[in-house]
Amino acid sequence: MPVTIDFVKSDGLVPAIIQDHRSGEVLMLGFMNAQSVDETQRSGEVVFFSRSRNKLWKKGESSGHVLKVREVLVDCDADALLVRVEPLGPGVCHEGYRSCFFRRLESTGNAIIVAEQTFAPSAVYAQPQEKKS
Amino acid sequence: MPVTIDFVKSDGLVPAIIQDHRSGEVLMLGFMNAQSVDETQRSGEVVFFSRSRNKLWKKGESSGHVLKVREVLVDCDADALLVRVEPLGPGVCHEGYRSCFFRRLESTGNAIIVAEQTFAPSAVYAQPQEKKS
Repeated sequence: MPVTIDFVKSDGLVPAIIQDHRSGEVLMLGFMNAQSVDETQRSGEVVFFSRSRNKLWKKGESSGHVLKVREVLVDCDADALLVRVEPLGPGVCHEGYRSCFFRRLESTGNAIIVAEQTFAPSAVYAQPQEKKS
Repeated sequence: MPVTIDFVKSDGLVPAIIQDHRSGEVLMLGFMNAQSVDETQRSGEVVFFSRSRNKLWKKGESSGHVLKVREVLVDCDADALLVRVEPLGPGVCHEGYRSCFFRRLESTGNAIIVAEQTFAPSAVYAQPQEKKS
């Protein structure tokens, strides 16, 4: 049946969870507007909307670490997406990790790194990365 | 090292991905404000902030389907959380599914149900559920 994605609650955007379709690992969370959802589905590669740069942002445009879409799921309220992907390259995080969720938040307010780096950011990114989400 | 969660980008909130810590299945996405993050960590059970009701919302308060926190991860920009949980009960979705992401979004704009119901909502919820996220 037709579904209308609810872009209203997040000011024209929906959060999009990126999950490795094989391992189940959650890799990152980005936001999409209607155009980036269309572009993601049309191209088969993840395209976010960058809130800080206020424009479409194709994941992997500078690193080559493109996210190949395997399936897009929508939640019951149609206000969040789960994009199951095949990630190209050793990791999605600009800090050199496979997943952006590489730190555990302790109840003390401290964060502890719980993953190993999988690549050197300086070898992939020519310039320091802006925050994009 | 200390981490400061960035509540600014989403108007005082951060998106919180809920993942089954054993199966890796992504169960739902909710939002948290600072108070609900504190309450989640203090109680060891997931507490969201409901945007539609504008107040804290303890997951499972009516259904009993509480989400027991196993670990909380924070992303590189500290503007999204990944909460790995042990879910109590047969599912988190008020429509009777284990995960709220039970529909696949096709490029046609149609959504196709790709999961089996795991419980009858009418047996769990006394009244029709409001949208909460």
